[in-house]
Amino acid sequence: MIATKAYAALDAASPLVPFSFERRDLRADDVQVEILYCGVCHSDLHQARNEWGGSMYPMVPGHEIVGKVVSIGSSVTKFKVGDTVGVGVIIDSCSTCKNCQANYEQYCLDGATGTYNAKERDGVTIAQGGYSSQIVVKEKFVLHVADSLDLKAVAPLLCAGITTYSPLRFAQVGPGMKVGVIGLGGLGHMAVKFAVSFGAEVTVLSTSPSKEADAKRLGAHGFLVTSNKAQMKAHENYFDVLLDAVSAPHDFTAYLDLLGLNGKLLVVGLPSEDPKLSPFSLITNRRSVIGSMIGSMQETQEMLDYCAEKNIVADVELIPVQQINEAYERMLKNDVKYRFVLDMKTL
Amino acid sequence: MIATKAYAALDAASPLVPFSFERRDLRADDVQVEILYCGVCHSDLHQARNEWGGSMYPMVPGHEIVGKVVSIGSSVTKFKVGDTVGVGVIIDSCSTCKNCQANYEQYCLDGATGTYNAKERDGVTIAQGGYSSQIVVKEKFVLHVADSLDLKAVAPLLCAGITTYSPLRFAQVGPGMKVGVIGLGGLGHMAVKFAVSFGAEVTVLSTSPSKEADAKRLGAHGFLVTSNKAQMKAHENYFDVLLDAVSAPHDFTAYLDLLGLNGKLLVVGLPSEDPKLSPFSLITNRRSVIGSMIGSMQETQEMLDYCAEKNIVADVELIPVQQINEAYERMLKNDVKYRFVLDMKTL
Repeated sequence: MIATKAYAALDAASPLVPFSFERRDLRADDVQVEILYCGVCHSDLHQARNEWGGSMYPMVPGHEIVGKVVSIGSSVTKFKVGDTVGVGVIIDSCSTCKNCQANYEQYCLDGATGTYNAKERDGVTIAQGGYSSQIVVKEKFVLHVADSLDLKAVAPLLCAGITTYSPLRFAQVGPGMKVGVIGLGGLGHMAVKFAVSFGAEVTVLSTSPSKEADAKRLGAHGFLVTSNKAQMKAHENYFDVLLDAVSAPHDFTAYLDLLGLNGKLLVVGLPSEDPKLSPFSLITNRRSVIGSMIGSMQETQEMLDYCAEKNIVADVELIPVQQINEAYERMLKNDVKYRFVLDMKTL
Repeated sequence: MIATKAYAALDAASPLVPFSFERRDLRADDVQVEILYCGVCHSDLHQARNEWGGSMYPMVPGHEIVGKVVSIGSSVTKFKVGDTVGVGVIIDSCSTCKNCQANYEQYCLDGATGTYNAKERDGVTIAQGGYSSQIVVKEKFVLHVADSLDLKAVAPLLCAGITTYSPLRFAQVGPGMKVGVIGLGGLGHMAVKFAVSFGAEVTVLSTSPSKEADAKRLGAHGFLVTSNKAQMKAHENYFDVLLDAVSAPHDFTAYLDLLGLNGKLLVVGLPSEDPKLSPFSLITNRRSVIGSMIGSMQETQEMLDYCAEKNIVADVELIPVQQINEAYERMLKNDVKYRFVLDMKTL
């Protein structure tokens, strides 16, 4: 067993605290990763505080992991010691269902195994995440990361990156298309970078006029204040694609109305209240609302390779792991541009 | 001006009554149709009783029209006197917007002109529908109907038919696909016929176990009682496509959960309360919710030609026009299999 240092939530109400536990000894197809950086995702906070229900404690959050391979199992062929790698939101799946067989592990019909706050496939062991010194993961769920990239800024690609890359690709975003990104946070700022890099005309939609300068700095061509009725009205039927990264409660109708013929509202935010939508708005222009959950392992690797080619990474604020509780509070106030990343050597 | 007999709603609260008015003299591109049959759509009742708001009176409802050409304007080329034709839900559009230019008249950005309860494009004249002896319509919005079909049963194809045909085609329904039809009414029974004819495995989902025999008679392979939790649970992740033709208030989540990878919920029903949906269900399996409104003129003609080829028509109950108010009451009790059609020679 591998002694591992970490920060963990011991219950829903207390701050995260230093925590020690053991990772399993390597199986034949396992890779042991020394963690360099771990991004702080809003879902870490939701789960640490049991806001979605069913949280399992002690919980070591973290699913935006970048590190170095320090050991490999006997049958591992994709990785060698010293490789720079990433681990994202899932670490296993059933591998036998229709969706797994089609290489959509994230949509495993038996439920893909989350990197933390989830039972491993033995049904007993609780998976622990990346706010830790080490992680042991099945080779199939480990990804190659190019050393040419700024590694701390790569970490958020493993969740925020793939969560926005995948639906934008699914909607075939490219030159000549008008794309709106709703909500300029961890996910939204990556969506802007990707949509711009795919050649689309990109507009940021936000409740905060103050975000315009930053939206433009990130490459957006337009900016729309969602509380400005005249601006919203002027953009009815305008967009081909909207990516909705908002996790605060909201309805879909006001956004649907902005979509033109065959327009697509891509939903990646997870508000705690079910959104409503007007069926009249939905049938106008043959609009659609499409959900998307991270990406497959294959697509995540494709995204990391694409980011290496285009030098795309997240905008991050590197913090020592001891500041995680403060980071959660700042995240709740949207006081981060645009992702906290834990520097794990401070552990 | 052309003297026209009709049945009209004079206000939201009274029964429909006999009514006389004048149709315009033919413009160069107009076709005059003597109406043989007019289907009774649920939206006729909604609008006659002002249930969607904004109704204009006197109102002659009816947008499932089959008749014979009795006169043509000087520039008409597509039709000659004696042709059997149909007129559906729209009779005009701006013809200049992006969507009209792309031949999606139903999604005209300036608003397609409804066959009744709508201002014509002069902004003044109120369009009057098919519960009448005659109609004068611009050639582009008139459709050829094959005489080989049972004409009274063709009438509902103009709304119920195209409204279900179009989204099923958009979702590329065909052999090897599992399709569910939610709600076995005027729209639903057409959806079953089309989906079966396209080669899909078709299941009817209904609140009423009593509809199973009829679902099978219409060609459905399976039947699912939506209040039966065990049956619903057993069909999670099962369908490729669900067509939701329910106009009663309902949420989408229970249906979304039945969809497998890339599964599509096609929405054609228009409940008066906005449906909710769970974003967690939506992102699972990359599901989508897609709205659809009737079809383009081109696609409506394609559907009518397809129906002639496959001998597909609606199941109808032919009634004299004098029974329209009784028909509305029976429609509210779902006491019709599956569409009332007015025999206009009784006028």
